[in-house]
Amino acid sequence: MKPIALDAAGGDAMPQAGVAGAKAAAAAGVPVVLVGDETVLRAELSAQGVDLPVHHAPDTIRMEDHAADVRRRRESSVMRAMRLVKDGEASACVSVGHSGATMAAALFVLGRLGGVERPAILANIPTKAGFTALIDAGANADCRPSYLQQFAVMGSTYARLFYGLPEPSVGLISIGEEAEKGNGLTREAHKLLQTTPGIRFFGNVEGRDLLRGTTDVVVADGFTGNVMLKLAEGEAKVIFGWVRDALTSGVLTKLGAALVRPALRGVAARLDPSEYGAQPLLGVGGYAFIGHGSSDGKAVENALKTAQRAVTAELVPKLVAGLAALGPQPG
Amino acid sequence: MKPIALDAAGGDAMPQAGVAGAKAAAAAGVPVVLVGDETVLRAELSAQGVDLPVHHAPDTIRMEDHAADVRRRRESSVMRAMRLVKDGEASACVSVGHSGATMAAALFVLGRLGGVERPAILANIPTKAGFTALIDAGANADCRPSYLQQFAVMGSTYARLFYGLPEPSVGLISIGEEAEKGNGLTREAHKLLQTTPGIRFFGNVEGRDLLRGTTDVVVADGFTGNVMLKLAEGEAKVIFGWVRDALTSGVLTKLGAALVRPALRGVAARLDPSEYGAQPLLGVGGYAFIGHGSSDGKAVENALKTAQRAVTAELVPKLVAGLAALGPQPG
Repeated sequence: MKPIALDAAGGDAMPQAGVAGAKAAAAAGVPVVLVGDETVLRAELSAQGVDLPVHHAPDTIRMEDHAADVRRRRESSVMRAMRLVKDGEASACVSVGHSGATMAAALFVLGRLGGVERPAILANIPTKAGFTALIDAGANADCRPSYLQQFAVMGSTYARLFYGLPEPSVGLISIGEEAEKGNGLTREAHKLLQTTPGIRFFGNVEGRDLLRGTTDVVVADGFTGNVMLKLAEGEAKVIFGWVRDALTSGVLTKLGAALVRPALRGVAARLDPSEYGAQPLLGVGGYAFIGHGSSDGKAVENALKTAQRAVTAELVPKLVAGLAALGPQPG
Repeated sequence: MKPIALDAAGGDAMPQAGVAGAKAAAAAGVPVVLVGDETVLRAELSAQGVDLPVHHAPDTIRMEDHAADVRRRRESSVMRAMRLVKDGEASACVSVGHSGATMAAALFVLGRLGGVERPAILANIPTKAGFTALIDAGANADCRPSYLQQFAVMGSTYARLFYGLPEPSVGLISIGEEAEKGNGLTREAHKLLQTTPGIRFFGNVEGRDLLRGTTDVVVADGFTGNVMLKLAEGEAKVIFGWVRDALTSGVLTKLGAALVRPALRGVAARLDPSEYGAQPLLGVGGYAFIGHGSSDGKAVENALKTAQRAVTAELVPKLVAGLAALGPQPG
């Protein structure tokens, strides 16, 4: 396998987190090439006592920059990393930098798969039984019904491959179970999904169904999906904060807390987004993964492993095959 | 104070929950009139050993009915209850039946306040410091920017009155902090909110900010708001279910669990929506409250108390005063 190109400049804790994550991933058998300022990266590699390939990129897109800036900043780390994928020198790109810029760079350099009007971010949401694939988790704030149809097909392919489900169920996020409940977008999308080949459409689902795992795939426009993802992650943190506070009041409670802490840690870990490290951008012509800007070394390591699994599983050719059933699309 | 009209026919656990809730509320000094089939209600009152006023309504809107049916079913319990409010015989209406029908009945019978294009549901979301007012929590799936402006004004009035905050902050739900992040609706609404008199606009907030309590009021279109509300409620249930499961594995963990249970119950209670019992529909010409269809006696009791507090605090005249600052609106 060609190495995975890690944008080791974009993100809050770079280059430390990038080098630490790449070092751990490399030790676990994941080939990595670090993309960023060569002098900075060589110094950090030396500081962490490891030698890994580096691809020089003199520029970095910062959080305050505009996503569209990537078009004219070809020398930025995220653009160089995508270019390595496009040129066949890397198998995938992972970035924990500016999410919008990573999406724009992926779209600009890798292009779209046939049948895809808008690529979408897929997030793995923990449930009792395993995971739900939430798509779109934030790439497209304004969607048309046909986009949601394409998300459903890509999400189903993903769930087949990664959750091992031959016929994953697909739910459409709305505000009532009945087909006519929802907004203009979901009512139209509901009709489309009912007749979409290659998916098992369950019908509308509601906010409460996400973590309950009512369906294997949950389709949403990127605005609603991103609000849901951030709410789900944020609420878990808030609740565990409350639990922590509650467990420090009173002697007997503190004693009990010491005994239950390992069990509670296990629950908290299931809800920790850094366990996956990064989310795939589905629908572009290659492998692109987007992580939290606040990713630490562990999150970067997990992101690189997630990318490797996707490449090994041949996710992109399988998306192409799944999308072919939809026939030609406008745009 | 005139009695509160309780729709004691619409809902999953009626008439038992209605009579039980009304009995408890009446004992706590909240005057109630039960609206529903008189024979059924008298029998239940007798079974529960209490005597309360009853207003006969021969018809009931069921969950499978259409919201718009209320227009021709004037004899239904929810329509009769609203009519009592309109005629000045009741001070407020509480229903835990068909939410859409309750909204339609409120709008049809009570009309809209001046300056309000669309009434909205306000939900109290628990935070560390107290509550956040989420508006709209589900009344309007498709919104225009001006609706969100009106929600912001009504939410601010509510927060001033019930959270005791002289200048509550208002956040607009979006998918990034910057003004230009979001969808077409939020970008326009952001501009409007920046120049809205009588509110303290904080800017965009994200899903994670809801339970964090970043702002006192969170404005959303009713689709996003409803998805958020149901996700927030559902996630709390799922997490506490996982915690319960985790605390039953191993002898030491079980021992610790017995010691921490009271503390954890306290945390779970904060996230229980039945603590409030019902959500106000703001922007109609009177007091209308909507509860969960699954409400039990305790939830109905709390809903009646919530309604009484709103009437006593003169919420509706204060909304009128707040909205006047917006000037005349279309529609």
